[in-house]
Amino acid sequence: MKYEIFSSDSNVITFSSFGTLKTQLNHIKHPLFYSNCCYCNTTQSSFITETKATSCDIRKTLARMEDSIDHLAFERNKAQFDVDEMKIVWAGSRQDFELSDRISRLVASDPAFRKDDRTTLGRKELFKNTLRKAAYAWKRINELRLNEQEAYKLRSFVDQPAFTDLHWGMFVPAIQGQGTDEQQQKWLPLAYRMQIIGCYAQTELGHGSNVQGLETTATFDPKTDEFVIHNPTLTSSKWWPGGLGKISTHAVVYARLIIGGEDHGVHGFIVQLRSLDDHLPLSGITIGDIGMKFGNAAYNTMDNGVLRFDHVRIPRNQMLMRVSQVTREGKYVHSNVPRQLVYGTMVNVRQKIVADASVALSRAVCIATRYSAVRRQFGSHNGGLETQVIDYKTQQARLFPLLASAYAFRFVGEWLKWLYMDVTKRLQANDFSTLPEAHACTAGLKSLTTTATADGIEECRKLCGGHGYLCSSGLPELFAVYVPACTYEGDNIVLLLQVARYLMKTVSQLGSGNKPVGTTAYMARVEQLMQYHSDVKKAEDWLKPNVVLEAFEARAARMSVACAQNLSKFTNPEEGFQELAADLVDAAVAHCQLIVVSKFIEKLQQDIPGKGVKKQLEVLCSIYALFLLHKHLGDFLSTGCINPKQGSLASEQLRNLYSQVRPNAIALVDAFNYTDHYLGSILGRYDGNVYPKLYEEAWKDPLNDSVVPDGFKEYIQPMLKQQLRNARL
Amino acid sequence: MKYEIFSSDSNVITFSSFGTLKTQLNHIKHPLFYSNCCYCNTTQSSFITETKATSCDIRKTLARMEDSIDHLAFERNKAQFDVDEMKIVWAGSRQDFELSDRISRLVASDPAFRKDDRTTLGRKELFKNTLRKAAYAWKRINELRLNEQEAYKLRSFVDQPAFTDLHWGMFVPAIQGQGTDEQQQKWLPLAYRMQIIGCYAQTELGHGSNVQGLETTATFDPKTDEFVIHNPTLTSSKWWPGGLGKISTHAVVYARLIIGGEDHGVHGFIVQLRSLDDHLPLSGITIGDIGMKFGNAAYNTMDNGVLRFDHVRIPRNQMLMRVSQVTREGKYVHSNVPRQLVYGTMVNVRQKIVADASVALSRAVCIATRYSAVRRQFGSHNGGLETQVIDYKTQQARLFPLLASAYAFRFVGEWLKWLYMDVTKRLQANDFSTLPEAHACTAGLKSLTTTATADGIEECRKLCGGHGYLCSSGLPELFAVYVPACTYEGDNIVLLLQVARYLMKTVSQLGSGNKPVGTTAYMARVEQLMQYHSDVKKAEDWLKPNVVLEAFEARAARMSVACAQNLSKFTNPEEGFQELAADLVDAAVAHCQLIVVSKFIEKLQQDIPGKGVKKQLEVLCSIYALFLLHKHLGDFLSTGCINPKQGSLASEQLRNLYSQVRPNAIALVDAFNYTDHYLGSILGRYDGNVYPKLYEEAWKDPLNDSVVPDGFKEYIQPMLKQQLRNARL
Repeated sequence: MKYEIFSSDSNVITFSSFGTLKTQLNHIKHPLFYSNCCYCNTTQSSFITETKATSCDIRKTLARMEDSIDHLAFERNKAQFDVDEMKIVWAGSRQDFELSDRISRLVASDPAFRKDDRTTLGRKELFKNTLRKAAYAWKRINELRLNEQEAYKLRSFVDQPAFTDLHWGMFVPAIQGQGTDEQQQKWLPLAYRMQIIGCYAQTELGHGSNVQGLETTATFDPKTDEFVIHNPTLTSSKWWPGGLGKISTHAVVYARLIIGGEDHGVHGFIVQLRSLDDHLPLSGITIGDIGMKFGNAAYNTMDNGVLRFDHVRIPRNQMLMRVSQVTREGKYVHSNVPRQLVYGTMVNVRQKIVADASVALSRAVCIATRYSAVRRQFGSHNGGLETQVIDYKTQQARLFPLLASAYAFRFVGEWLKWLYMDVTKRLQANDFSTLPEAHACTAGLKSLTTTATADGIEECRKLCGGHGYLCSSGLPELFAVYVPACTYEGDNIVLLLQVARYLMKTVSQLGSGNKPVGTTAYMARVEQLMQYHSDVKKAEDWLKPNVVLEAFEARAARMSVACAQNLSKFTNPEEGFQELAADLVDAAVAHCQLIVVSKFIEKLQQDIPGKGVKKQLEVLCSIYALFLLHKHLGDFLSTGCINPKQGSLASEQLRNLYSQVRPNAIALVDAFNYTDHYLGSILGRYDGNVYPKLYEEAWKDPLNDSVVPDGFKEYIQPMLKQQLRNARL
Repeated sequence: MKYEIFSSDSNVITFSSFGTLKTQLNHIKHPLFYSNCCYCNTTQSSFITETKATSCDIRKTLARMEDSIDHLAFERNKAQFDVDEMKIVWAGSRQDFELSDRISRLVASDPAFRKDDRTTLGRKELFKNTLRKAAYAWKRINELRLNEQEAYKLRSFVDQPAFTDLHWGMFVPAIQGQGTDEQQQKWLPLAYRMQIIGCYAQTELGHGSNVQGLETTATFDPKTDEFVIHNPTLTSSKWWPGGLGKISTHAVVYARLIIGGEDHGVHGFIVQLRSLDDHLPLSGITIGDIGMKFGNAAYNTMDNGVLRFDHVRIPRNQMLMRVSQVTREGKYVHSNVPRQLVYGTMVNVRQKIVADASVALSRAVCIATRYSAVRRQFGSHNGGLETQVIDYKTQQARLFPLLASAYAFRFVGEWLKWLYMDVTKRLQANDFSTLPEAHACTAGLKSLTTTATADGIEECRKLCGGHGYLCSSGLPELFAVYVPACTYEGDNIVLLLQVARYLMKTVSQLGSGNKPVGTTAYMARVEQLMQYHSDVKKAEDWLKPNVVLEAFEARAARMSVACAQNLSKFTNPEEGFQELAADLVDAAVAHCQLIVVSKFIEKLQQDIPGKGVKKQLEVLCSIYALFLLHKHLGDFLSTGCINPKQGSLASEQLRNLYSQVRPNAIALVDAFNYTDHYLGSILGRYDGNVYPKLYEEAWKDPLNDSVVPDGFKEYIQPMLKQQLRNARL
């Protein structure tokens, strides 16, 4: 950036050896210096040593100094805990921290991964840009001999959705999970080397949530020992698969298996889509991109596609046959591999989604928190500094619960990872006992965390005021790229209904000696929980983990029991379930919130090293729980778990907790350890140098390529000159 | 669209003289026909007359028939009220209906206003496209000799934000409201003919909400009888004004008036920015566009700008001097025009924002409702049709409250229009008594309706499942273009705090004989309301308007009183206000919700003609109120206005009401009378012909211009061929 000097008057520039800068200008305030005054607390003047300088010196000094000034240093100095130790807690382990730290810096420091120009590109340029980055990332992965985990990290820090996400995230795992050993030996090496590129073709134009309703058919032809893949209707067109539209050479296609006129339900098939020579779709196959999606760049970097088959033939051995097989004679048989495996896969996929939720939410919170410390509005008396918006209680009451949620989702995600390993171990030992509970639990947590994250990102955007609406804030992209998580891998409301079904089953079996397991274990104490009345007498009582936990358990249990009682009034249970669906969803939410709260509390029962680290997490845990209690006060009151006075004590305690977080807020988002590249936000810059950079960024827009815009001569000049009547428009 | 015929078998096509279509195909289901089967209820077979046709005939017939088929006819037939009469109610009057109907059709039928390609354009092309449409619209306005109201309608139905919005909506009104007669005579004719194009330059890089904190200065120079407009700092750069970046020739610039070193606060000045000859910025002026914003097209059609002045001189008579003047001698004097005028203007602007909220929300609801009737998921037994998603209670519980909100906001907007006229009349008679209440009321309603609308649009998008994420659904654009309304013209939380301040003042004066007026009149009954306990005994009791109204009044009054009591515990009232801000915001929301509910109820006390129309509105009014009660149950319970049993009766009644709306849902959104052009959504098409059109639309994406995408040779082929190592990327 070039700095204009507004006056040739001699200026006095003063800066400290501690990297903070303070200016005393004679009458004229230099824009950058003035900004600095806005950021730095004036109380730091004791550090300052004076140096005289002329305008000319200033000009030279500025560029050099700007990038080394930390405008948020005075905020960081306030922190009451060891940020480096918190980084380890956030990452999960020292090893995980070091991995993320190393790979994220590697990406951030490579200009080939620059992403600040994305939002101005048209669709074609944007897509080409993605192809380049994906190829370059793959090249680097090979050059640096990165292992699988490192490669995954690298792709995620590149932070631009691409066909490779589906290749590695869906195509490869589908073959690993559903292919026979023979199929894995044939296809996986090709996929691992990217000699073929695959996608996952499940959803159809008319069928998203209802996988069992898919219409694409795979009809066995015993004459030729082939399957005939076909789309009988328009609504059966495959629709949405990422990477399909323009890039994938292969797909795992889900279709109804038809043998001799009999429908055996939906199965997966490996189908080659495009020639490996000229990349043209094979005969009988129509493929295209489904068009623009929400957001400027966001998922428009991805070729979500449409696919139609007109009687396309594939060999019989391209059906994924680990669980069920079709023999040469056209007999449909099951292997001894348990079908429940598919649920294990679901637990794994959803576990990753919960982990991603904490990442997305924490990015937004990091941006909003840093900018809330930089931004000042109102509260200035006698011409002094205005108040940092982070000091307003309304800002805290919206921002800090999201900060707490980010941590809460992080820890519940960590626990889900353990759950997945536990389930896998049991599956291998043919123990399916915990599977339904694990499935319900992950479904519910996927729904809860993705909804809260999508809403939370948008709330963070609003918390940044008008500037949050600029793409350079990073928040519009973050929202647009995140929000499909509420729909994919199970619509969030549909998932909650699945949880509710499981809860109703659990309640109905309570008398039968079938002991509820895992996250529903509290239901075993249902009689006690139905009698529960909170004994909170003063605001601090709400800081006790057991007090909070019992209130959440009682609320969840009572809402489930109430639903079960209301359901029992219907002669047709399914009709009752439909009629009471909205209440059932509420009960499921209560149950899922309890899980998150209880896992946060469990985390805090562990030993957590680092000065003040555990204390901060305790504060965040209380905020998360009491914020939910406040938000769902109607649940807690109407079930009689707490009384209005106790509700108001919870609000009082919440306000106290906000004051405790306040000095630690910046350090708590620093602990996420995001690079400025990954954040992709001027408002969220680590150094807080927002306004000069925002100003600088504006000029990069293509509209600023010329002073007089394209179209002026044809459309605006005739208007101004009153010559529009004869203009051709 | 070209239809592929999937088989040359002879097909039997059957269609009715009533415009519905039903097919019987031998084994092969034609995609279009199959879709039809999905939409049309099979029970209509009695209308069907048979005609034999060959494949070839089908091909020809299809294109002709497709556009005349109403796939939602069976839904429209269910309606229990007179849709045409409801259209009048929605529009406000028969005259308003006819105006909107005529102008919207005029725009929709003109290919020059086509907008379906917007989201694929790069920034420059998009901007040029906007300039063309704005010029063309102005040309048509003149050719057709449209009056002001018609011209306004035309611009809004063009539905693409442009510099003209600010010219007509802010620049012209600023001169009308704040200019002297002389200034109006000089500037308005130029503006009316668009010989000059103006914008409204208020907000600065560092100053949005806090207008009093603006830093731009206008220093009077008595030597030359001029003002010197200057930006002393970077943060004082004008930032955000629409139309400024590339187009405006003039601006009303807000700056601190400095005379002889004394700061007289913020005033408006007319400043020429660009040459009327070559459009270049005048000397001392730096202008540019501030860059990409949220959404694909959305506000990227607009040149929101940045502006810096380096000691730019304007004649003294370009300060807007209706309220205060600077004399030739540099004396600052007030005219006898009341300063309160500015509040009148605010009431007007915000009144329009509330009206716009009902438009935006109703568009989203229209799309989601129609597609919820078209879309089917689950519930199919024996291979029949799946269930329309609009029949699911969870869908109804999310969608119908938004439908009710759209109507509620429409009516409260109508009432605000009346309020504005009332306030204006009083101002002219120097009666300022109702102004503070009117100001608080419009501030609160602006906040309430814009927040609910932004959230509601996003909820509608989610209610459309995955396809809502496609730009062709229209919903991403609608959201991105709407959501700034939560921030501009007063941040929504800041506005609620203003309302809270007014409420606290009202409560504090209750004993003093100062009778609360207007929307706070219920506060006069505070003693009675503090004693109130709802006497609801059965679900139907919640249908009585008075029962609902009293519960809302009691809740609002008690929340305000509770805040006032808590505030009184603080020795420093301002500190208390900051500390309790979150509770104060809740109290303000309760008050504003009461206003909307009460104005809906008042509307229903009027005579409303048309079969079944009033009945439908009564149902919607109850839904709006009971939905709020359910959502804010904690408020109602903790203030003791209702008990848990009554809360659960409200939920029960709400479910009944959803069943009553269900058959009328499509007709209730038809009553908005939106053209398909204005809706801009394939999911929301009037005829419900969603899937074939979605499929057709996909192929228009630029990525589909070529089968093999640009970038394949450079990036993908080397990857597949394992030749990446030597590739230059």
